[in-house]
Amino acid sequence: MVDVSVDKKSSVPVYQQISRYYRDMISQGKIAEGYRLPPERTLAKTLGVNRTTILNAYRDLKEAGLVAGHVGRGTTVLPPSAAPESAAGEVQPLRWTQLLRQQTATPWEGIIRDLHALTERKDSIILAIGLPAHDLIPAKLMRETLDALVAERGPEAFSSGPCEGVFGFRAALAGLMGQRGAPCDPDEILVTTGSQQAIDLIARVFLEPGDVVVVEEPSYFGALNVFRQAQARLLGVPVDRNGMRVDLLEPLLQRHRPKFIYTLPTYQNPSGALLSLERRRRLLELAYRFRVPVVEDDIYQDFSYDGDPPPTLKALDTAGFVIYVSSFSKTLSPGLRIGWVAAARPLLHQLVLAKQLSDLHSPTLSQLLIERLLISGDFRRHVGGLREAYARRRETMGAALRAEAPEGVSWTKPAGGFYFWCRLPDVSQAALMARAGEEQVSYLPGMPCFVHERSEHRVRLSYSHCPADQIHEGVARLMRAVRRLPRVSDPTRGRLAETRALV
Amino acid sequence: MVDVSVDKKSSVPVYQQISRYYRDMISQGKIAEGYRLPPERTLAKTLGVNRTTILNAYRDLKEAGLVAGHVGRGTTVLPPSAAPESAAGEVQPLRWTQLLRQQTATPWEGIIRDLHALTERKDSIILAIGLPAHDLIPAKLMRETLDALVAERGPEAFSSGPCEGVFGFRAALAGLMGQRGAPCDPDEILVTTGSQQAIDLIARVFLEPGDVVVVEEPSYFGALNVFRQAQARLLGVPVDRNGMRVDLLEPLLQRHRPKFIYTLPTYQNPSGALLSLERRRRLLELAYRFRVPVVEDDIYQDFSYDGDPPPTLKALDTAGFVIYVSSFSKTLSPGLRIGWVAAARPLLHQLVLAKQLSDLHSPTLSQLLIERLLISGDFRRHVGGLREAYARRRETMGAALRAEAPEGVSWTKPAGGFYFWCRLPDVSQAALMARAGEEQVSYLPGMPCFVHERSEHRVRLSYSHCPADQIHEGVARLMRAVRRLPRVSDPTRGRLAETRALV
Repeated sequence: MVDVSVDKKSSVPVYQQISRYYRDMISQGKIAEGYRLPPERTLAKTLGVNRTTILNAYRDLKEAGLVAGHVGRGTTVLPPSAAPESAAGEVQPLRWTQLLRQQTATPWEGIIRDLHALTERKDSIILAIGLPAHDLIPAKLMRETLDALVAERGPEAFSSGPCEGVFGFRAALAGLMGQRGAPCDPDEILVTTGSQQAIDLIARVFLEPGDVVVVEEPSYFGALNVFRQAQARLLGVPVDRNGMRVDLLEPLLQRHRPKFIYTLPTYQNPSGALLSLERRRRLLELAYRFRVPVVEDDIYQDFSYDGDPPPTLKALDTAGFVIYVSSFSKTLSPGLRIGWVAAARPLLHQLVLAKQLSDLHSPTLSQLLIERLLISGDFRRHVGGLREAYARRRETMGAALRAEAPEGVSWTKPAGGFYFWCRLPDVSQAALMARAGEEQVSYLPGMPCFVHERSEHRVRLSYSHCPADQIHEGVARLMRAVRRLPRVSDPTRGRLAETRALV
Repeated sequence: MVDVSVDKKSSVPVYQQISRYYRDMISQGKIAEGYRLPPERTLAKTLGVNRTTILNAYRDLKEAGLVAGHVGRGTTVLPPSAAPESAAGEVQPLRWTQLLRQQTATPWEGIIRDLHALTERKDSIILAIGLPAHDLIPAKLMRETLDALVAERGPEAFSSGPCEGVFGFRAALAGLMGQRGAPCDPDEILVTTGSQQAIDLIARVFLEPGDVVVVEEPSYFGALNVFRQAQARLLGVPVDRNGMRVDLLEPLLQRHRPKFIYTLPTYQNPSGALLSLERRRRLLELAYRFRVPVVEDDIYQDFSYDGDPPPTLKALDTAGFVIYVSSFSKTLSPGLRIGWVAAARPLLHQLVLAKQLSDLHSPTLSQLLIERLLISGDFRRHVGGLREAYARRRETMGAALRAEAPEGVSWTKPAGGFYFWCRLPDVSQAALMARAGEEQVSYLPGMPCFVHERSEHRVRLSYSHCPADQIHEGVARLMRAVRRLPRVSDPTRGRLAETRALV
């Protein structure tokens, strides 16, 4: 009679699994008008679930106008046109969530939106965001370059371009890859609308529901959320100060066959860790042995403050396993929306096919602007200056932490990048966030950076975005909030849902 | 023993279904090292398929290094680490296609890429592309506006912005929506990276594999390909000169429960058709009755040459069912990569969540530039001029067709937009494309605009992109190609695969 089955381990709530089953059967015409759904108690017993679960499932179906329930007659399937209409001919608004693809809402699904919204707030010191400082965006240089460019190229500067990116720009990027020790051809490069799109396109071409992806823990929340949206299974490998614990990788690769390994080897987000050369070599050996591609997210490459980092994985890779991702959002400015992927040709071909459907191509003006800055050497000179400025910011935050942090707060000074990754004493997350809001300072809580909820009490503090002279005050405010909170025995006590708002 | 089952009606080839089943079982550890796959003949018989199908499936698994075949011992599952490595320690390149998500390649999957690549060719007259003419891109106006803007806003002009778009720009867009008869609030608007991204995001939030989408036939190939990629089932409704045959819609809505209806009511791409007011009203009535949202793709709104079009569906919609999509790619320039969606808030909220993972936000400079042009009135004045220029181009192409087209070629003069949609006599598609290539003229074949392969012999000729003084010559070349081809009885004779290249 009833073929519905439920998977209690699924991330989709059981009641949704049931309502979805009937919804599909009805929409495919496999269950006809007038069909009586099984009585709630019977179905609950058959499936071994609570009766409330069935009630919720049937309520879903009722609200969607697919079934009607009558005392004594049970729940029956309605004819398609019998969707409830109101009396006066007024049309009821759609229930959008019932029409949309079923997705499990996660507490941090809106985090990128929330972080970007923060930048519009002027009343708070923002340590939450890994965006470049306004005063380090080379607006004057870009303005002059833009003007020369538009004068020279005319309408071409605004016109459409190839999906994979303007050829001259890809050639300049190939040159930049050479400077980064990984020379490649322009046709091994795809220009993307920021590195976020690169990650998204990679997920699109690789992932089917249930596929395994190996990630670092912690990792960039924006990538984790993309992989989650693709319904991948995420396996986390811990990060220490030398980067991913590659020694823990082998059994994962042996047991699961991940589609790829996603790593930020250089000045990792959020931990600031730098993967050692030895571990880089070992990571590639394992990738070769288990034939797993490696996605190298390398957007902090230019922000080295204590000497050069080890070569990129892409530079060390002799077999084309590394899919290299980077961007100009940190070095020039995020508003340009330009990143890129460098990868083996057969993969690049598939990424281009996905890209064309996603947004046709990336902004032309931004591509031509950066092409000019790369060729003129202005980019390289600019980055040299940036390195010094961000190194000073790092010192400022380090000094502030030393001066302001109470006992129980610990951190490691990062060798590059934008972040201090701090461990806090046992305080309630929700209470800390509320108190920080009162103190008018924002930070990134550690939780969205992990695959599973962690009791580990971490925060990421960014020294990149707020005005340099506010860094110390920002740290002082946050540490005041930490000091004033009572220590708790269970730091996850505050429910996740309560801690969603960032300020 | 064997739980594998196959769906012969699926678009995934049967052998891939089988190899995928085993691949999944092996990767999930449900089939262990040493397990012997069923003998080929046995499995073929059990599944009722040809033995070659099984051979192909097993070959797939062997190439992926998952199994090995030995005469007399059958095909057995290899240990994970036993992936074939070459003798000298040299790593074999990855077989990317085996790692990627299984997708059915379609003959027109690369069409957007191919069309965009065409723009780089200088040796041919391009009637294939619906991009604006270079000389109608207001480069001087945009240059001056950009310069004033960057001077005034400084780094802010390049910086990051909210995922949903810069507020001031959304406010200006809300004003534009008011001018288009559909006033809305800024927070009912999402700025997208071109209207292509708007379509893609809509597909992302609505569609699961097997969901039904109602589209026009013909329709915009880029949208059809997005829906196909989402594995939707497409149901086509024919278009005549008054637009979608809304009279044929009711049974489709009644029988299937589509997630949405995708329509280009105003100067349809590719047919040029204009949906009549009566049909617009009827379409909304049906949408309300069956509670189906309507995606209105309205990118040709400003290109009316014979008086104003009827009100948009969005303007006629009293219940918030219409998801309105438009862009500045045709009116200002495609390189800016700016489009937008106007929709009910609950849906917009979900679109923003998808947008943030897709590319964080759209280019800031483009948003601020267009905001200024909208507020100053420059945009409105520019569009007035455009209308006249494109109307002249339409006359030029109409006159060229009248002068050059041989008997058997027919068309309807479009009341707006960019295209003549011509019916050709029975000639081989492949031969026509080859001959047009020799004549150095490109056109868009009709096939990618249909849900299923059609024998109907159509081409879309665009008068928007090539220099105005080449339109006549382009039409003359194409018609020469048509005249010189022998008529065939079966116009689909040339295989699709042969006709993929556009010149």
